[in-house]
Amino acid sequence: MASGSEAAGTGTVSEQLDALGITLPVAPAPVAVYVPARVVGDQCWTSGQLPSVDGRLVTTGAVGDAVSVEEARAAARQCALNALAAAAAAVGGVDRLTGVLKVVGFVQSPPDFHAQPSVINGASELLQSVFGEAGRHARSAVGVSALPLDAPVEVEVIFSWRA
Amino acid sequence: MASGSEAAGTGTVSEQLDALGITLPVAPAPVAVYVPARVVGDQCWTSGQLPSVDGRLVTTGAVGDAVSVEEARAAARQCALNALAAAAAAVGGVDRLTGVLKVVGFVQSPPDFHAQPSVINGASELLQSVFGEAGRHARSAVGVSALPLDAPVEVEVIFSWRA
Amino acid sequence: MASGSEAAGTGTVSEQLDALGITLPVAPAPVAVYVPARVVGDQCWTSGQLPSVDGRLVTTGAVGDAVSVEEARAAARQCALNALAAAAAAVGGVDRLTGVLKVVGFVQSPPDFHAQPSVINGASELLQSVFGEAGRHARSAVGVSALPLDAPVEVEVIFSWRA
Repeated sequence: MASGSEAAGTGTVSEQLDALGITLPVAPAPVAVYVPARVVGDQCWTSGQLPSVDGRLVTTGAVGDAVSVEEARAAARQCALNALAAAAAAVGGVDRLTGVLKVVGFVQSPPDFHAQPSVINGASELLQSVFGEAGRHARSAVGVSALPLDAPVEVEVIFSWRA
Repeated sequence: MASGSEAAGTGTVSEQLDALGITLPVAPAPVAVYVPARVVGDQCWTSGQLPSVDGRLVTTGAVGDAVSVEEARAAARQCALNALAAAAAAVGGVDRLTGVLKVVGFVQSPPDFHAQPSVINGASELLQSVFGEAGRHARSAVGVSALPLDAPVEVEVIFSWRA
Repeated sequence: MASGSEAAGTGTVSEQLDALGITLPVAPAPVAVYVPARVVGDQCWTSGQLPSVDGRLVTTGAVGDAVSVEEARAAARQCALNALAAAAAAVGGVDRLTGVLKVVGFVQSPPDFHAQPSVINGASELLQSVFGEAGRHARSAVGVSALPLDAPVEVEVIFSWRA
């Protein structure tokens, strides 16, 4: 159905993922004490996502130092994909997700690195390419001293959804 | 109508702004990949706001180092004004905003700076002076290693509103 | 009523606290410009909580440096207890709290400390032991350069509740 479609948001989320050539990752397994995503009414709140593929981080280190802005942007995109997968699993399928309400991006930053927005654009652009207008969200991007597993970036997302 | 009124919350939000001698800034223009504020049901979530006036930061640098607590507190107040403007634009007018639910304040802090609450009071006090009792909010204030554009402070706000 | 009960979530919250041998701390007094917790519909949002007992921090300093992971985990547990007390006061009693939706944990971290999740588990495990299945929450854990009063950890919690 999505063949020929280039514009975002013209089909279902899964059609749009197909059109973009994106395969959704397997949702990370729930850990003991918290869950990858929590349904709250008509919202789905993800936990902070790291840029992992098959359980391994794609990059580690501080951005602007060991990690370039471009590498960090790609890592932020991966965080958003993982958030999408976590939310899809929580609501029972990616096509139940209807939009993006909020993104918070934490970037591992030495004090002289100030391009956090450019990094988190990697997440925001992925989400907007999948959801189109419904993907436009409020956002905060900040620089933090350290992240779990030495990840360069961590992203949490609030989606809207309907059954 | 607000003439002579000193008490917070006795009139509309715009009357209260007048009584306080505050001119709301022009809301920042939406950028490509996210929006300055997002309406979510009866709430309005702002993006993280920087202390900019007419597109330029009023101060840059780490608090307790290049930036004094008083300067940072004034910057936090400016962040809150920008949040108010962003939310007003999103809901269709400042008088549709009915209160403040949550503030998160990020303060650019070297490890030995611990007065983040004093800094973020600049935002909280502004919001409470405008909304009175309805402006009392939950809040987190933390110190971060770096912020976009070398800003000393970034503040996001969740408002309540009604049409 | 809870005598003999070891399983989480089998009784009321206060029964479960009794079964765990936990005495809820006195909720911190509201300060001038923000409140310890804010009721928002069927949710209760706490402010960022510090690991204080009777108004004094149980530990200060950076985790992985002056503060061990075990000490920080105990501090995170205390933050969660303070959040529980703040929310209980806001909704009119701990037994009106029905579950935990979200935890955000900020850990004072030098750049080479990466075990923020282990630290924040101190908060998550306490909440899950009190609420059982209803205590499973979305979560973000990040490392920050500095926290108020040199606290090693700050935790905010979103609870669900009903009258």
